[in-house]
Amino acid sequence: MAVVGAGLAGLTAARRLTAAGVSVAVVEARDRVGGRVLNEDIGGGNVVEVGAQWIGPTQDRLAALAAEVGVDTFPTYGDGQNVLEYAGRLRRYSGTIPRINPLVLIDVERAQRKLNRLARSVPTEAPWEAENAARLDSETAATWMRRNVFTRAGRSLLELGIEAVWAAEPEDMSLLHMLFYIHSAGSLQMLFDTEGGAQQDRFVGGSQRIPIRVAEELGERVLLGHPVRSIAHGPDGVLVRADGAEISARRAIVAIAPTLAGRVSYDPPLSGYRDQLTQRMPLGTVAKCMAIYPEPFWRADGLSGEGTSDVGPVRLTFDNSPPDGSVGVLLGFLEGRHARRLGRLPAGERRTAVVDCFARLFGPRAASPEAYVERLWAEEEWSRGCYGCHLPTGAWTNYGPALREPIGPLHWAGAEIATVWNGYMDGAVRSGETAAQEVLERLV
Amino acid sequence: MAVVGAGLAGLTAARRLTAAGVSVAVVEARDRVGGRVLNEDIGGGNVVEVGAQWIGPTQDRLAALAAEVGVDTFPTYGDGQNVLEYAGRLRRYSGTIPRINPLVLIDVERAQRKLNRLARSVPTEAPWEAENAARLDSETAATWMRRNVFTRAGRSLLELGIEAVWAAEPEDMSLLHMLFYIHSAGSLQMLFDTEGGAQQDRFVGGSQRIPIRVAEELGERVLLGHPVRSIAHGPDGVLVRADGAEISARRAIVAIAPTLAGRVSYDPPLSGYRDQLTQRMPLGTVAKCMAIYPEPFWRADGLSGEGTSDVGPVRLTFDNSPPDGSVGVLLGFLEGRHARRLGRLPAGERRTAVVDCFARLFGPRAASPEAYVERLWAEEEWSRGCYGCHLPTGAWTNYGPALREPIGPLHWAGAEIATVWNGYMDGAVRSGETAAQEVLERLV
Repeated sequence: MAVVGAGLAGLTAARRLTAAGVSVAVVEARDRVGGRVLNEDIGGGNVVEVGAQWIGPTQDRLAALAAEVGVDTFPTYGDGQNVLEYAGRLRRYSGTIPRINPLVLIDVERAQRKLNRLARSVPTEAPWEAENAARLDSETAATWMRRNVFTRAGRSLLELGIEAVWAAEPEDMSLLHMLFYIHSAGSLQMLFDTEGGAQQDRFVGGSQRIPIRVAEELGERVLLGHPVRSIAHGPDGVLVRADGAEISARRAIVAIAPTLAGRVSYDPPLSGYRDQLTQRMPLGTVAKCMAIYPEPFWRADGLSGEGTSDVGPVRLTFDNSPPDGSVGVLLGFLEGRHARRLGRLPAGERRTAVVDCFARLFGPRAASPEAYVERLWAEEEWSRGCYGCHLPTGAWTNYGPALREPIGPLHWAGAEIATVWNGYMDGAVRSGETAAQEVLERLV
Repeated sequence: MAVVGAGLAGLTAARRLTAAGVSVAVVEARDRVGGRVLNEDIGGGNVVEVGAQWIGPTQDRLAALAAEVGVDTFPTYGDGQNVLEYAGRLRRYSGTIPRINPLVLIDVERAQRKLNRLARSVPTEAPWEAENAARLDSETAATWMRRNVFTRAGRSLLELGIEAVWAAEPEDMSLLHMLFYIHSAGSLQMLFDTEGGAQQDRFVGGSQRIPIRVAEELGERVLLGHPVRSIAHGPDGVLVRADGAEISARRAIVAIAPTLAGRVSYDPPLSGYRDQLTQRMPLGTVAKCMAIYPEPFWRADGLSGEGTSDVGPVRLTFDNSPPDGSVGVLLGFLEGRHARRLGRLPAGERRTAVVDCFARLFGPRAASPEAYVERLWAEEEWSRGCYGCHLPTGAWTNYGPALREPIGPLHWAGAEIATVWNGYMDGAVRSGETAAQEVLERLV
């Protein structure tokens, strides 16, 4: 078996297949494993994650994998008050609900309930079969919001939430895709929340320890630094050609984002139906930015480090310090249009813009970090965006079945393929397990 | 100079540069020139075009090029009545306006006027600078139609028109993109019409004679059968690596659709800003289908061969017989969702579906063609769709400037780059001329 891509999906698939006694080679473009999961060393034995990092309730397959390879979790720091920069003022609040105009809160709350209810009507296995699929796929999340969120501030808050979850703007996305994604996670609250939601816990030593440990188990089966350029495929199997490596196998699991899978050359070429799907799955845009301080000084001020801003460009922050709090790390996200705009600035200007936001939210001590770390995922040749792919209008209903359906000996995996926690590490793990299962059923 | 792609854009650029005394190599993946412009021999000295074929008023640069290489035009056959299958009935009508419910006609007419007016507010050089750009780019053509076309039949007719022009569905496209495209052609009428519009005239011997003649002029400068895989670029120039060929040059004009340009590997990798644009320019979906008869029998019945249907799957037909009418050719388009659905059927079933439509519109003689020719452009590895790329919501306003801006020694050409007649052969020629000009200014 050949596996293309040593992210969580590909590695999970390879691990499953290896456990079943199948011989596997994982071919990876980069000189490291983990894909969009990546630790960065900040000295003193500490790391920060510049890619995916959290785990939350119901993300059971990721939890199981982490447990199996011996990577522990710890709670995301959340003691104290959150800050909100909103309508020109800085406010502190406790819990998940800021003290802003109650009409706005009611407005947002009602919109969220409506989205959750609509989301439950979208089958995650086949969004195109939703009762109202054509209609839901013909409009953007932006036009839905225009009709269903009545206050300007409510739309602004929901837009911030959309940016945070999809690293894209409401106008980028089909409403049907948004609903599918919500359903695959359970609810909007599951996507938005820290405690009880997708941002609840972190991994000791950084999330990349999971793929690194899996890769260690797989040993020489993982081939780094070999970008796959073409895959010949037919009834007799596959021939995967990468720079400096060729793998022939009975089947291949292509475990890279669909956009990138569309850039591989296939022989024979894949159908227009499959290819045109890959033309309609752009990746989101995010810069993950962290400022490092001698200590998490905001904790002493009674702040959790969690902050949101209606100004930006950093619209969302977290305390991302190591478990022992030995240094302080403020994490800020540039997402969607903010990442697209700031991604084109020189690094120094971007750092200034980000650190200025931290200082507005957490006071003057935030203005002078000891170090600054950032990662712009759209610049990465072998990712080309983060967190994952979203589908614009018309894509699910016109091309949906092409997303998961194997083509001869070619199988698809990756966070974008998952039906549960699509777009998340948990979804990536699930998709790898599913692809391995598909292959095992056909190898018999 | 290296030119990637021997379609009309690349060949026009190469011709200009050659005329200016610049040494040029055109590297083409296919074993033929013309890209989405392609003749197919139907015997007896006749050809049909399975790709782009028409020329109309204001398409002056295509007209000039055709004249320079000695390819003549003749009028699209349009004598007699058109047919319309609509609301379960077959009707004949003369001129451009069918005799259907006048309320529907008024409805469509008003929507067209409104679209034309809106289109004029969108600068073709910079659609993202339209006064209301963010709003226009946040919704699809489908939701605009829902608010602005009041009759169900009116929406159906406009949908048919959109499929015919963009080979896509109203839900696929940003309203801003639709408006840009209308403006770049002049008006919706210019896009829709035969006489006085984009379908007015045809080329004697088939449109592909134009790129073929240009390629003959260029001689050995055109290298066929060499798919370009990577382009190294820097201040010292470019190194274009193709299967079986390497070209080093001072600059390169990449004259392939942006989606395909995004699949080339660049060293150093291009910015996320440019790359993410190419993730947001899917190609349309069309199957061009032609049935060939001993004679154009519909002419004797007083019919023009032009027909439309609200049922489909063929929604639009033309008389595509050779100039002398020595054989009869009915041309039918499968576009947008119809092409996506029928493109997945076995060829025999698709032929039956198409010929059945011809028989419904033109009578039982149409049921038994002597031959049948079709081309599904999404299946073509080096096109991956037709007629061209459209932009989904959010793409123009978030990424627009990345479309035309050269990157160091890399320049962009192709019908998608044009500001006048975007998506048409005329636009391709213009984009080639512009790219050649850009290069000449920088070579001095």
